[in-house]
Amino acid sequence: MKKSSTAPIGIFDSGIGGLTVAKAVMKALPNEDIIYFGDTARVPYGIKSEETVRSYALQITEFLLSKGVKMILIACNTVSASAKDEIIKAAGDIPVLDVITAGTLAAISEPRHHHVGVIGTLATVNSKAYVKAITDIDKSIVVTQQACPLLVPLAEEGWIDNEIARQTLKHYLEVFKGKGLDSLILGCTHYPLFKEVIPELLNGDGASIIDSADSIAKTAFDRLADMELLNGSGGEFQCFVSDRPQRFQELAERFLGRSVSEITIVSL
Amino acid sequence: MKKSSTAPIGIFDSGIGGLTVAKAVMKALPNEDIIYFGDTARVPYGIKSEETVRSYALQITEFLLSKGVKMILIACNTVSASAKDEIIKAAGDIPVLDVITAGTLAAISEPRHHHVGVIGTLATVNSKAYVKAITDIDKSIVVTQQACPLLVPLAEEGWIDNEIARQTLKHYLEVFKGKGLDSLILGCTHYPLFKEVIPELLNGDGASIIDSADSIAKTAFDRLADMELLNGSGGEFQCFVSDRPQRFQELAERFLGRSVSEITIVSL
Repeated sequence: MKKSSTAPIGIFDSGIGGLTVAKAVMKALPNEDIIYFGDTARVPYGIKSEETVRSYALQITEFLLSKGVKMILIACNTVSASAKDEIIKAAGDIPVLDVITAGTLAAISEPRHHHVGVIGTLATVNSKAYVKAITDIDKSIVVTQQACPLLVPLAEEGWIDNEIARQTLKHYLEVFKGKGLDSLILGCTHYPLFKEVIPELLNGDGASIIDSADSIAKTAFDRLADMELLNGSGGEFQCFVSDRPQRFQELAERFLGRSVSEITIVSL
Repeated sequence: MKKSSTAPIGIFDSGIGGLTVAKAVMKALPNEDIIYFGDTARVPYGIKSEETVRSYALQITEFLLSKGVKMILIACNTVSASAKDEIIKAAGDIPVLDVITAGTLAAISEPRHHHVGVIGTLATVNSKAYVKAITDIDKSIVVTQQACPLLVPLAEEGWIDNEIARQTLKHYLEVFKGKGLDSLILGCTHYPLFKEVIPELLNGDGASIIDSADSIAKTAFDRLADMELLNGSGGEFQCFVSDRPQRFQELAERFLGRSVSEITIVSL
């Protein structure tokens, strides 16, 4: 059965990071209703086994499907790396997009893409998910990864462009200096918060910054347009979390740059 | 039945932070065998409900009791705040010490203790566990708390005294400047790693630094001596974790300042 164009888009993440994807979708698709799920009771996923991550991701997928979503966006790098295929299968004819595929395709679509950099959490870097996704498409592309464990806590503390954030970023980005980087994928949904600061700290190389939140939002627009499922009359944003709505609200407003009124706790 | 003096001491934490307690115990009680449990699969506890934390803590207590420990040290501030009474009950005649009680008693034993500072994670600060523990003993004591969310990731990154660590600490400690602080409790088991840097950044106030790892180790020594349970012939260190022994080993060696050979994964 074809979904109605007025059905919401489902977006989920292990916690709050995926709100950067929600923000990008709000910008690219302002007339869509969005249902966001953040698994705040079980964050972080990166330290859990693939099996556990898959079972959590499938629970959330079922939840979003029960809400009648017309599309699912996996706004979590760990889930994208380890549970994408299972989610696609569980979602049936509902399209599923993920941040790793979106970021990879965006990097490869750049005019220059011989050397791609990836920054992410320790878990994402260790999983080599971006390296695999990129070299599966073109083996000749060189991928340089750098884990940046402090960026998530910095983003959550709201230290986005102070001296501490700049020094930390400078330290992490040092590895890319003078290496002729063509693009840098922000391989963690928290990192778009540093998007204004990163280019000047990467200076000299002129690498494009690939924000997978923007990339996945653009892909969502294209896919919904193709399927004639664009909504012209929505724009509502509903948040569901598995724990602590108070802390979530404070961070959500920082991540989204707007107030968030409707936050509901659900137990999966 | 009286425990044998050669029985091991059990120490546990939600993850690796409690290793600072293990290190302090090794120093104060070099001839004791130690069994450490780090719940690395379920860390962090601070974002979980009290009920969940209690059930995890009781599982670990049962595990340590099954290993025949003669004493249990709760090296986790979240567990100390929310599950201490249940663990004492479950442990029967095996003495149970916790970092919050140890830190509180150490601060109150200082010659000057009118104004006590506490730094900790967001969860510990929000729980007000130290404030309650201190004011339950002496209502006239003023307690000033400061959450320092970046210190755990800094410690795990190994950035203990570089410029980023110093600037971050300076920022967090600003709240105590010129307030006539008598002592500052390091209310998170990761924080003793910053013990060398903190005094100079708190300068002027001359506050004593209360390291609850040292405090609990000292209490453990006194209690074992009282009970005539000091070991004269041990010194072994065994580690059990619930996930990822490799990352644990790397961090454990940084935290302990020595190599760690025996790490076993257990599923509780």
